[in-house]
Amino acid sequence: MVDRKLAERELPDSNTGDRAVHRRAHSDYRWDGVEQLPYKEDDRALFKSITRQVLFSDSEMHAELRYFEVAAGGFSTLERHEHMHAVLILRGSGHCLIGGEVRSLETRDLVTVPPLTWHQFRATKGEPLGFLCMVNALRDKPQLPTAEDLARLTADPTVAEFLRGGL
Amino acid sequence: MVDRKLAERELPDSNTGDRAVHRRAHSDYRWDGVEQLPYKEDDRALFKSITRQVLFSDSEMHAELRYFEVAAGGFSTLERHEHMHAVLILRGSGHCLIGGEVRSLETRDLVTVPPLTWHQFRATKGEPLGFLCMVNALRDKPQLPTAEDLARLTADPTVAEFLRGGL
Repeated sequence: MVDRKLAERELPDSNTGDRAVHRRAHSDYRWDGVEQLPYKEDDRALFKSITRQVLFSDSEMHAELRYFEVAAGGFSTLERHEHMHAVLILRGSGHCLIGGEVRSLETRDLVTVPPLTWHQFRATKGEPLGFLCMVNALRDKPQLPTAEDLARLTADPTVAEFLRGGL
Repeated sequence: MVDRKLAERELPDSNTGDRAVHRRAHSDYRWDGVEQLPYKEDDRALFKSITRQVLFSDSEMHAELRYFEVAAGGFSTLERHEHMHAVLILRGSGHCLIGGEVRSLETRDLVTVPPLTWHQFRATKGEPLGFLCMVNALRDKPQLPTAEDLARLTADPTVAEFLRGGL
């Protein structure tokens, strides 16, 4: 199955190269030797106020660990894909949409995003929402919802309110 | 390379089965639906006062995420293996040995254990040391040090003191 996905994989984030054994945490959820990758604001408003840091990515490891942080009021892209996400909330609180379900999230909660399941994370509670996300190194590209997909999702009033940013 | 390792792999920790989408954190670093696996104290004193919780393990994911917690004064097994560890300190502080180097650890520090590198984690600072550990689902078994390996490691006075629990 990995082979089948090879053709359409996203390139794994680059290795740190020298394999630094110990990288110290800073007080602001930054780390020695880890670049913070700001997502540019998207004209289509697919996401808002989210940054990404790749904490672990190595050719010997079959998965990567990333840290995403959404500023208060921000959100990640609403998307789905064949690969899974394994998420641990590291900082703050918020809400997520997983499939048809909206969940309130607190620090250290665990979230599993199954294959081909629509998902989005939102910092809905006036504070940042920071989360670790484990993901296969070889993985397919995210899909965005069509107008039909959105109509199906927003048929549920709670989901509609979540996607409007009304929570 | 995965195939070569298949014959000697440890069995991956069992799947949660129903893929619970959201598992809430408790205040004591426990989680809904996650079993705490206490390591029995080992007669040979290979490890002490350490527990394990498997946070994510799924047949669709190529890695697992585990949470280990070492009580004050406890330590993990001194071992090495071909597979790597990617560690984030989630709780407390302590020290680790990675290869020939002893490092002081604080919350959220990142530790990379390269292939075939001796390593041990110790809760040396009067508080628990809790850490997330990402590991390939298919992996080789740990090796324990021989008397010769130990002699080589403890030739360094800092390493010797670390292993004696003197830090």
